[in-house]
Amino acid sequence: MSASYPITPVNRLRRRHDRGRYDHASVHAILDAALVCHIAYVIDGQPHCIPTGFWREGTHLYWHGSSASRAIRQQDGQKICLTVTHLDALVMARSGFHHSVNYRSVMAFGTAHIVTDPAEKLVLMDRFVDRIYPGRSKLIRQPNAQEFKATTIMAMEIETASAKIRNTHVGDEEEDYATVPAWSAVYPVTQVLGEASECERQMPGLAFPEGMADFTPGIAFDVLMRRSWEKGLAPHGLYPDAAEEAAEE
Amino acid sequence: MSASYPITPVNRLRRRHDRGRYDHASVHAILDAALVCHIAYVIDGQPHCIPTGFWREGTHLYWHGSSASRAIRQQDGQKICLTVTHLDALVMARSGFHHSVNYRSVMAFGTAHIVTDPAEKLVLMDRFVDRIYPGRSKLIRQPNAQEFKATTIMAMEIETASAKIRNTHVGDEEEDYATVPAWSAVYPVTQVLGEASECERQMPGLAFPEGMADFTPGIAFDVLMRRSWEKGLAPHGLYPDAAEEAAEE
Repeated sequence: MSASYPITPVNRLRRRHDRGRYDHASVHAILDAALVCHIAYVIDGQPHCIPTGFWREGTHLYWHGSSASRAIRQQDGQKICLTVTHLDALVMARSGFHHSVNYRSVMAFGTAHIVTDPAEKLVLMDRFVDRIYPGRSKLIRQPNAQEFKATTIMAMEIETASAKIRNTHVGDEEEDYATVPAWSAVYPVTQVLGEASECERQMPGLAFPEGMADFTPGIAFDVLMRRSWEKGLAPHGLYPDAAEEAAEE
Repeated sequence: MSASYPITPVNRLRRRHDRGRYDHASVHAILDAALVCHIAYVIDGQPHCIPTGFWREGTHLYWHGSSASRAIRQQDGQKICLTVTHLDALVMARSGFHHSVNYRSVMAFGTAHIVTDPAEKLVLMDRFVDRIYPGRSKLIRQPNAQEFKATTIMAMEIETASAKIRNTHVGDEEEDYATVPAWSAVYPVTQVLGEASECERQMPGLAFPEGMADFTPGIAFDVLMRRSWEKGLAPHGLYPDAAEEAAEE
């Protein structure tokens, strides 16, 4: 049986228990299929919700920001909630009440902190690039002193988390199927990768990177991100639990 | 000149001013192209970030929830932040520092409240359905007493907001173009509508609704949502400022 996040008053689903999951495999699959999350944090009593790039290793989450950013400074040492949502479909039913969307989402709770160890930070900066596709960190120029200083890496151990999934069809009240003339359907919504627009100053003769074999136009972006995560990060787990969990899942 | 949201310590961009916008037209275009937002709110000092369906009318935002939901009860009368993000592209540069994404995002700040007037709530419930496409509320069954009671509509006047947009190409340090062998490109990422999966119990002979003329498989979901908003909600502004602003923009 897969490990699970503890169920506490913070993450326990009060409604639609049928859609809830707490096991690592379900939670991590949703997180690893995304590049962008939304983070809730508070400044002077005012909640803020900010989108940012992030990635997971084991039961830790990482994201980055400018060292000059107020958001980053405010998050350090504070409770936050990091949320990922994949919209999968519109669900159009015969009553407003049964209209819905199909989705996969995770809310992860913990305390954010700035990664202060320079060696750890440097590794993590590479890992963020390799999260796009395996091996990219070896192709790019490494950060110079100024870039290193200007970038902050944030970390959070997932104290608890919940996943919520809806992936079913139209479900109406029995009496509505035969009597309500509303054309009803599920419309998939998918984030897809388009055709690359190469940099006009591409180095002549440069080969398309091996690590980008999965970057085929039309591929679902969540599938691509999950594959990149599996190939680029999972085999080189920074934290011991990453490899264990990968095996377990 | 278009109206703008006031610039305050809450919404003022500290960084990347070049990417910031405060005018209604820019903020609203981003909001109206989305069906799903993320809302940050606080329960007992713990920030939460929750995805939900929403829509805009004038300078008001609306969303819904179960009347039994803790999230909804906690938001009532509280400051929140409602954020919309469209991921538009991956930007792969020659250094980690210049890796980025193209995106359009809005953070909107205000105080949430439950819509208590039954007549207003009923209208808003229809508007949420018409936000999917114009005229759907006339086709479906209207809410029964139990559904009406079980649904809560939340409203927020946008007190202030900011939009942030990146839509440029790879921008590297001058010395890196000729020396760093990292294949560099912008990869568009687009949310698209797929092929409808009709309800198996579709009423025989039911015509495809006129209001769904824009629901063609492959259409960008943000374009579709913006069109539905323009056709379904803009002409019937619930609040006086909606029509004025539509004209102004």
